[in-house]
Amino acid sequence: MNENTIADSRLKQQINFISEIDKIKNIFRQTYVSNLSRQENDAEHSWHLALMAMVLKEYANEDVDLLHVMQLVLIHDMVEIDAGDTYAYDPEANKTKRERELKAAERIFHILPDDQADWIRALWDEYEAGETKEAKFALSLDILHPILMNDLGNGLAWVDHDVTEKQARDRVARVKAGSEALFDLCSQIITENVAEGNILPGDGTK
Amino acid sequence: MNENTIADSRLKQQINFISEIDKIKNIFRQTYVSNLSRQENDAEHSWHLALMAMVLKEYANEDVDLLHVMQLVLIHDMVEIDAGDTYAYDPEANKTKRERELKAAERIFHILPDDQADWIRALWDEYEAGETKEAKFALSLDILHPILMNDLGNGLAWVDHDVTEKQARDRVARVKAGSEALFDLCSQIITENVAEGNILPGDGTK
Repeated sequence: MNENTIADSRLKQQINFISEIDKIKNIFRQTYVSNLSRQENDAEHSWHLALMAMVLKEYANEDVDLLHVMQLVLIHDMVEIDAGDTYAYDPEANKTKRERELKAAERIFHILPDDQADWIRALWDEYEAGETKEAKFALSLDILHPILMNDLGNGLAWVDHDVTEKQARDRVARVKAGSEALFDLCSQIITENVAEGNILPGDGTK
Repeated sequence: MNENTIADSRLKQQINFISEIDKIKNIFRQTYVSNLSRQENDAEHSWHLALMAMVLKEYANEDVDLLHVMQLVLIHDMVEIDAGDTYAYDPEANKTKRERELKAAERIFHILPDDQADWIRALWDEYEAGETKEAKFALSLDILHPILMNDLGNGLAWVDHDVTEKQARDRVARVKAGSEALFDLCSQIITENVAEGNILPGDGTK
């Protein structure tokens, strides 16, 4: 559409935002889709998390507000449009992650009208801080999801990166704060994938 | 994971469902992602609709429950895992669409425990019936989305299928029931793309 298609400047900002975030469909993660044909992207991942929130809400440690959890997971990776996906087991990339993502949040959310930019930014800050019960549960789902996907895909993403049992167990430790039950599930899946040779035992040294 | 990883049969059903719906990431639509590198899939489309619900809620004709709209759009295409994507402008495929989708709903939703299967099925039935204010608004977003995406992508999906102005205007007529403002936006975008030659004028006869 041309510059003058939308006369209303508020609607124009909103449509510009909706157009911009389409780019998240091209931010690919390390995790594969279940038929292993390719890696999944952030839009697909976020959709899957929102469905997991709907279906697994009963396992949250505390009674969570479902709408709030769904909003957190649907927007949590949007900053990766500029900052890229930072792999959980990449210590170097994780050093600069926060700075890159803050800069992205400034640009992307402010395509929206101010009131909505502030609202989405507050959701993202809440997710990042991980202190509310909804943020804790959202993070639990975000960590569980690649565990489930990797398990479905015969551990390929773990094998790709020589992931060790120590790394995997450190990673899932934070699930416990959002859901004891889902933490137990993660632990069982890790145990099984160590036994199957998809995750290196211990810290990876023989 | 092996058959015995999850002792709890309810959690097992829920995880089986979450695994099964991953297949929606491989159901591709006629609409392209904005950089035109490929067509988008149902998971990405559904994620985008949920974000549109968050950002465009104020344009619904009636005051809608946001959680409800988001749930409708997140599950609305799940039956396409079995039934495939039926292109809006394919009259032959649309004749058998309903039957194929009903069969898919029976199988897919019932991977869940009964209470959740009934809940998701009721959401899908509500979306399909299009009678509640939330279903009307969800459908408005579902129709607006490819209009926005095709416009962003220089009309490629319209050109691919020789879409006519009559087809496009008939398609967007249903947006009006959910949102007058978004119907006006659709109409403007169609007018512009007819002028640009991306949509064939009138009924496509000279």
